[in-house]
Amino acid sequence: MSSRQDLTFGAGLWMFGQFVDRYATDAYGPVVGVLEAIDRAGAVGDLVALDINFPFDEGVSVDQIREALARNELRCHAITPASYSRKYQKGALTNPDPALRRDAIALYKDAVVAARTLGAKYVKFWPGQDGYDYPFQVDYADLWKCSVDGVREVAESAPDMQFAIECKFKEPRSHMFFSNVATTLLAIQAMNVDNVGIVYDLGHSLFAKETPAEAVQLAARLGRLTSVELNDNWRDWDDDMAVGSVHLIETLEFLLALRTIGWKEVLLLDQFPFREDPVVAARESIRTVRQLNALLDRIDLDALRDVQRKHDALGAQRLVLDLFLGGR
Amino acid sequence: MSSRQDLTFGAGLWMFGQFVDRYATDAYGPVVGVLEAIDRAGAVGDLVALDINFPFDEGVSVDQIREALARNELRCHAITPASYSRKYQKGALTNPDPALRRDAIALYKDAVVAARTLGAKYVKFWPGQDGYDYPFQVDYADLWKCSVDGVREVAESAPDMQFAIECKFKEPRSHMFFSNVATTLLAIQAMNVDNVGIVYDLGHSLFAKETPAEAVQLAARLGRLTSVELNDNWRDWDDDMAVGSVHLIETLEFLLALRTIGWKEVLLLDQFPFREDPVVAARESIRTVRQLNALLDRIDLDALRDVQRKHDALGAQRLVLDLFLGGR
Amino acid sequence: MSSRQDLTFGAGLWMFGQFVDRYATDAYGPVVGVLEAIDRAGAVGDLVALDINFPFDEGVSVDQIREALARNELRCHAITPASYSRKYQKGALTNPDPALRRDAIALYKDAVVAARTLGAKYVKFWPGQDGYDYPFQVDYADLWKCSVDGVREVAESAPDMQFAIECKFKEPRSHMFFSNVATTLLAIQAMNVDNVGIVYDLGHSLFAKETPAEAVQLAARLGRLTSVELNDNWRDWDDDMAVGSVHLIETLEFLLALRTIGWKEVLLLDQFPFREDPVVAARESIRTVRQLNALLDRIDLDALRDVQRKHDALGAQRLVLDLFLGGR
Amino acid sequence: MSSRQDLTFGAGLWMFGQFVDRYATDAYGPVVGVLEAIDRAGAVGDLVALDINFPFDEGVSVDQIREALARNELRCHAITPASYSRKYQKGALTNPDPALRRDAIALYKDAVVAARTLGAKYVKFWPGQDGYDYPFQVDYADLWKCSVDGVREVAESAPDMQFAIECKFKEPRSHMFFSNVATTLLAIQAMNVDNVGIVYDLGHSLFAKETPAEAVQLAARLGRLTSVELNDNWRDWDDDMAVGSVHLIETLEFLLALRTIGWKEVLLLDQFPFREDPVVAARESIRTVRQLNALLDRIDLDALRDVQRKHDALGAQRLVLDLFLGGR
Repeated sequence: MSSRQDLTFGAGLWMFGQFVDRYATDAYGPVVGVLEAIDRAGAVGDLVALDINFPFDEGVSVDQIREALARNELRCHAITPASYSRKYQKGALTNPDPALRRDAIALYKDAVVAARTLGAKYVKFWPGQDGYDYPFQVDYADLWKCSVDGVREVAESAPDMQFAIECKFKEPRSHMFFSNVATTLLAIQAMNVDNVGIVYDLGHSLFAKETPAEAVQLAARLGRLTSVELNDNWRDWDDDMAVGSVHLIETLEFLLALRTIGWKEVLLLDQFPFREDPVVAARESIRTVRQLNALLDRIDLDALRDVQRKHDALGAQRLVLDLFLGGR
Repeated sequence: MSSRQDLTFGAGLWMFGQFVDRYATDAYGPVVGVLEAIDRAGAVGDLVALDINFPFDEGVSVDQIREALARNELRCHAITPASYSRKYQKGALTNPDPALRRDAIALYKDAVVAARTLGAKYVKFWPGQDGYDYPFQVDYADLWKCSVDGVREVAESAPDMQFAIECKFKEPRSHMFFSNVATTLLAIQAMNVDNVGIVYDLGHSLFAKETPAEAVQLAARLGRLTSVELNDNWRDWDDDMAVGSVHLIETLEFLLALRTIGWKEVLLLDQFPFREDPVVAARESIRTVRQLNALLDRIDLDALRDVQRKHDALGAQRLVLDLFLGGR
Repeated sequence: MSSRQDLTFGAGLWMFGQFVDRYATDAYGPVVGVLEAIDRAGAVGDLVALDINFPFDEGVSVDQIREALARNELRCHAITPASYSRKYQKGALTNPDPALRRDAIALYKDAVVAARTLGAKYVKFWPGQDGYDYPFQVDYADLWKCSVDGVREVAESAPDMQFAIECKFKEPRSHMFFSNVATTLLAIQAMNVDNVGIVYDLGHSLFAKETPAEAVQLAARLGRLTSVELNDNWRDWDDDMAVGSVHLIETLEFLLALRTIGWKEVLLLDQFPFREDPVVAARESIRTVRQLNALLDRIDLDALRDVQRKHDALGAQRLVLDLFLGGR
Repeated sequence: MSSRQDLTFGAGLWMFGQFVDRYATDAYGPVVGVLEAIDRAGAVGDLVALDINFPFDEGVSVDQIREALARNELRCHAITPASYSRKYQKGALTNPDPALRRDAIALYKDAVVAARTLGAKYVKFWPGQDGYDYPFQVDYADLWKCSVDGVREVAESAPDMQFAIECKFKEPRSHMFFSNVATTLLAIQAMNVDNVGIVYDLGHSLFAKETPAEAVQLAARLGRLTSVELNDNWRDWDDDMAVGSVHLIETLEFLLALRTIGWKEVLLLDQFPFREDPVVAARESIRTVRQLNALLDRIDLDALRDVQRKHDALGAQRLVLDLFLGGR
């Protein structure tokens, strides 16, 4: 199993950009260009990789991106096409307008080119606008078909590239089609391609009523775990808070699950620090994860296996709570 | 598509029994024997089939059950083995004690015999005690393995019999392993047998953050929809209330989904009318479903398809709300 | 009790403006100026009053607002100061910076002037940024004190003006201080002023785990119901959907509660039709409310009182469901 | 502020009794008489007080209770009348049957006699059956009146005795009238008596979407905090789990709030260890609370006040997470 020193961190670049919501329409801070955002990510000092939104800002070339990454000793880990902007407000791959569905597929194909150029490991589907808001609004069979066919078409167009779907229960649509890990795995099976997996987001999992350590192992068991994103929330919304700030115990259990499945890849931060300094927010999350990881180095795994073999709830609690509270 | 006259109804026999919970430990009413419960079910006047708990009351023979069914013009539609009583409080097929896991399998095999004798269509897995309550309590990979292997073993032991798993998010365990439709479908796939499906429970679906009309079609699409149970709740617990009492619109959409997939089987009521007369509760639910079904006879399906093709939320709402509210 | 013809409708002007969220940062549609938004509201054809955000767009005078209202036969019903923009992202009346708290109070006082000029019935507190996001972030006693003292100071500065607080559980903060009706009523009592009440928002009530018909009567019983806003949601977020689109039964019960308390004021629509035409969205909501109100004209109130006297759940259901489903 | 050595613990006696629910109707273990339950409580070794259900088991005298308490060095802290059994399934003080409402009041008055005899600090209202399950089932104004009048009548009949209401969102009713802290405080104000307060239950608060540290201070600020009960849950149900097992951070924040308000009374455990040894469950919870309390001894309160003055979310997080994770 991996130990403390193995952990490496990345982040979604949006974390260092400008935030806006439906109330603070004048945004929570000034505009941040993509190159400046990369510099901010570099300022964290402990990030090695980024997930970068695509297309880049108007007038910014791939070379400029590459240069900004280089000067900050960062690499491009993933590309996230902007399939969630105004144009795609009624869906990208599931848009009711076939022309827009074609545009979405073209956007993904363009993103593949950028991903190859920048050496990204995967292209992400973030289908936040693909879903429905009202009862009776859509034909669910159509939604399934467009989702499955659309992702398959993109994946088959670039067999050398890995793709990954980030599922979430809701937001911006009141219901997203790729709502949780299990549903997304079923849809991926229906695609019948090898190069589509899941971006497992810890907060989305908490939000979807999943048990994170269980859900991530399910995705891994089926060979579809492509990436892991970290954050926290209050379990009733995708608050994108600092890691471990609310669900400390579940986050520890989740990190242990990552050891169990032998996860060696970078851990990506996906936070929206609306009212906080994103550089500090990233550093604090990394510190917390490293501290939790150090706790795991000290856990008595034989003892844990023993209590788990008996489903001994209180025994498991004692082992774990003493890590947080004991020895004083 | 099926029309109004096609609807037939059944019920879980527990609906006509004695209810107890952790507060009213003296129960909400007197003891009701299994034969008396069957007579109560018969008194509804519009039920044709029952899902019967197994084993039957001590001292009651299969012949007596058969006789009680006959005099009430009811048939045995399903058998539900009592894998949720004190003995199995830490799980049936996933119990930490291998001897109890064997007992659970034996219980299911005995149930198959009873099911064959009574002509039941399927034997139900209701794995309410199979799960966990606390973080770190169980090894999720073990839970998956025991669940998949256990159901498979039972199913393979009786290839002539149909089986069906009823999933739920929680209760009595704070987390059930078979938590929702998609997770259960993945586990069924892993079993690699043909004779295991899903008991889709409308209330469990609402509770699990699923959209009922979407989830039931997902199960049907994968060929795993064995049975349908009806009730309602407040979406934060399995309240097992009368059908349509809270989610009238979603229940209508669900019934339309049943037409879409061509569902012709009996609809089973699964209610816990703690403080109400169960015979009245059953009648009221049936009346509501028949009324909703009559609304569906009047819906303009071409118009609906047209608004759904456009994902026109307000258009869909208008069509539907006018059914409930219009023409006055 | 009021009957159908008595219903009059208003709307929050934001409903006709530009929507943005954290994903579609290019907004769901083009910029809409305040005067254009008023014209859109006028186009609904069945609105008589508006709740208008303050300050108005730069360069727009009160006279222009008045003129736009006049040409659309609308009146200004309320003024909502923009205490939720970037400047107040860490709170308005509870901002950690005392200078910003003073600015917020000044903003409210300016709003009073505008409200008087336009003949508004009340000035609204919409304290969406007043709260906290993380455990341990704030001293709750300070939050209480700043909230109570701040509203009191504004209210005492204009004893001729009515004020009203719109409470919500969360968003944009992950926890708002004025989280639900009961908490807000307690805070209002602590203010010890006569001219502060509640803006009861139906969707916020559903979101806060309240029973709308119960919560609105609680506010009325304490003499603090200043205004009523209508919409709907999925009960896990403030989705601001069309009225009755999800909670048809609870909306009917709520409208009956409004009759019970003798509510004669305008009903304000508070929707965010991100992907729909706001004029159509408003018309559809009004149509639904009028249809529900027509159902109430037909309800047998004596029969309802009789079943309620017995707490007869199924009897109440039958009365109500037959309104929606019966007579066919 | 109180320090570690000051903490004393009690428990609800039900925690040591027999558990049953609607599935394991044969109960999770054998019958446990009240005297045996007291001996079990004594076996914990670190309890000083009990909340005891009333009436006691048939045939058990007050003297026997007193003796059992004495031999276990326990005192009776509170009496909880059984207003939630079969008889009161449609409510105690709010039962639709006036005769049953009188019986409930008589039950409470009898409990006062027992409470005086045993030297209890307060008599508890646990109005779990007082509420409603279905829309339109009750007249909310009646429910309010019966609740307020009923508690007032009992309280006025024994001005020397303290009373306290334990509120909860739901269960056994799908909606309880006394649903959360703020609503209960409003109802208590309407009673206009001095001797009625609140039993603040940590798990109920988590369940009701309250922030525990905030809600308990609200009750204290209004002078109505009579008792504190501890447990944990998954925030979607009253799971009554061991303290700190899920919400470790919020439990720490809650214990700090108790210090802030100067709480010196016994802390009562209210758990339902369905599948665990209750003596171990109690010991583990006490150990966790003592450990958390020791963490509080080490927190830098000046630093915390400083970050809270700035609403500095990440600063507060760092202070707190380092307590759990730091120094390694």
